[in-house]
Amino acid sequence: MGPVAAANNGKRVVVALGGNAAYPPTIRGTAEEQLEVMEGLCEHFVRMINAGYQLVITHGNGPVVGNILFRMAKTAVELPPMPMDVCVAHSQGGMGYMLEQSFQNVMRKRGCHASVAAVLTEVEVDPKDPAFANPTKPVGKFFSEADAKRLGQETGWDFIEDSGRGWRRVVPSPQPMEILDLPAIEALLAAGLIPIAAGGGGIPVIRNLDGDYKGVPAVIDKDLTSAMLAARLGAAAFIMLTGVEQVALDFGKPTQRAVAQLTASEARQHHKDGQFPPGNMGPKIDAALNYLHDYDGMVVITSLERAFDALTGSAGTRIVRDA
Amino acid sequence: MGPVAAANNGKRVVVALGGNAAYPPTIRGTAEEQLEVMEGLCEHFVRMINAGYQLVITHGNGPVVGNILFRMAKTAVELPPMPMDVCVAHSQGGMGYMLEQSFQNVMRKRGCHASVAAVLTEVEVDPKDPAFANPTKPVGKFFSEADAKRLGQETGWDFIEDSGRGWRRVVPSPQPMEILDLPAIEALLAAGLIPIAAGGGGIPVIRNLDGDYKGVPAVIDKDLTSAMLAARLGAAAFIMLTGVEQVALDFGKPTQRAVAQLTASEARQHHKDGQFPPGNMGPKIDAALNYLHDYDGMVVITSLERAFDALTGSAGTRIVRDA
Repeated sequence: MGPVAAANNGKRVVVALGGNAAYPPTIRGTAEEQLEVMEGLCEHFVRMINAGYQLVITHGNGPVVGNILFRMAKTAVELPPMPMDVCVAHSQGGMGYMLEQSFQNVMRKRGCHASVAAVLTEVEVDPKDPAFANPTKPVGKFFSEADAKRLGQETGWDFIEDSGRGWRRVVPSPQPMEILDLPAIEALLAAGLIPIAAGGGGIPVIRNLDGDYKGVPAVIDKDLTSAMLAARLGAAAFIMLTGVEQVALDFGKPTQRAVAQLTASEARQHHKDGQFPPGNMGPKIDAALNYLHDYDGMVVITSLERAFDALTGSAGTRIVRDA
Repeated sequence: MGPVAAANNGKRVVVALGGNAAYPPTIRGTAEEQLEVMEGLCEHFVRMINAGYQLVITHGNGPVVGNILFRMAKTAVELPPMPMDVCVAHSQGGMGYMLEQSFQNVMRKRGCHASVAAVLTEVEVDPKDPAFANPTKPVGKFFSEADAKRLGQETGWDFIEDSGRGWRRVVPSPQPMEILDLPAIEALLAAGLIPIAAGGGGIPVIRNLDGDYKGVPAVIDKDLTSAMLAARLGAAAFIMLTGVEQVALDFGKPTQRAVAQLTASEARQHHKDGQFPPGNMGPKIDAALNYLHDYDGMVVITSLERAFDALTGSAGTRIVRDA
């Protein structure tokens, strides 16, 4: 599974941004607040663009799609609620627009003449993916146990108790199989534009028995989709942003230590040993390994603040192919 | 104001689709229903693609953004409602995705190997546009007079009594000044993709005094934006779809007659004479005149069913430059 376009991609960098980074728990969530946060993110991205890197921005959508799902549920009596795939599409629309506008405003201030474009992204998943039999990904708001039980009976949704804060709907989190809008992302890159793509891990679709594409209620991990995108684009670098500058081993123990580099084998072994929690660093390590399996580039996990330095190898945790 | 790219655009066709065509009042509005309607639309579009035309699809969003605004208002106690520009972006996300998927499914059945891409589209308007002092465009749901008065006081929104069916919020409908995402649409076309763009007339933004782009609560007429897009792209044809096959003069009178062709001067004169109602055929005539002013191509107003024949000049009402 090599890159689609091998030409002239030495400066291509896929940057995967967390949904909470664009909508942190510290804000109430107005559009003004979100735009202010996004402008802060874009300062870092524009610095990369001005240094000659050709970015592709991917992003999570957790809080935003949670709000959209909540609004759908709350108005289900008056209006047919849109299913989860359409809600993800709404979130790609809203977040893509706000990110694009934040980019435009920061670029102007920083003398950057690039153009940004947000493109809707469908990602195909396998209807036989075992994840469909075992929903694990919490989405949307917290409910009381009673409300969760009632909603579960009414809608057939699955709920779990999440982190002691209440009950949340869980949906399957299948593996990405194919990024259906890859040609559009390639076209934008070829024209020198900066794509914003694969929001929320992509709109999850399957192919029916009759061959038709059809949306499914699921969440594709945005780091796994981003890794696939980075490999398919032949991006020389793939950066996953998170809350910490480096990956830690023995997290929370006296032996805790940050690591600057891991080989793929080391990362795989630590992962097996339970070093990386499922909801957090685990998918990032999986994504890094997938990218390295598919493409021989640079993959780094780091914080927004160190992302620029990570590009030159002087920050973050780099995962590298085995020698 | 000529085309950006003059090369190889003789087969470019911008097709502007009404918001009600994709979400007719006859459906309840589930995603399944919308997708079924859209597949019907795409049968016609794919026929054009298979005949060698390179389409750009634009679309209205009236019913969809109305639902989104309703959901925002109904959950405003629990969640900060997104402003109108973000709601338009949500609608571009949801409708763009569903149109794209409908295209994919119809194309496969019809042996068409094109790729479709939905791109978010911001459109700049002039903050000094007189429309801002005189909101005229109804959006969203109908309210009782009492509810409209209360909401007006709470939110500062303007309301009018609409068609005897109740009260509706009205927003300004300024002229499009610039399609900010034109480079992305050009890039997609250059790569042979079929862009879905300018949904709902585009996300309305102004430039602040400090130079920053900022969303505004407004609706840009989708036919006017589509006309600008068609001219900028140097599209050889611009087709506006509506409920009737041809434009009528003296509508509803004994002298009513459908017309196959109007010169720009004739159209302008009939418009002055009040032949074309403001909410309906009026903006389409304005859009046709704008396109002809900016670009010497073919512009037709017709129904979905006759759109293919309109391309060869054998259906619809064509408006042509004065000899």
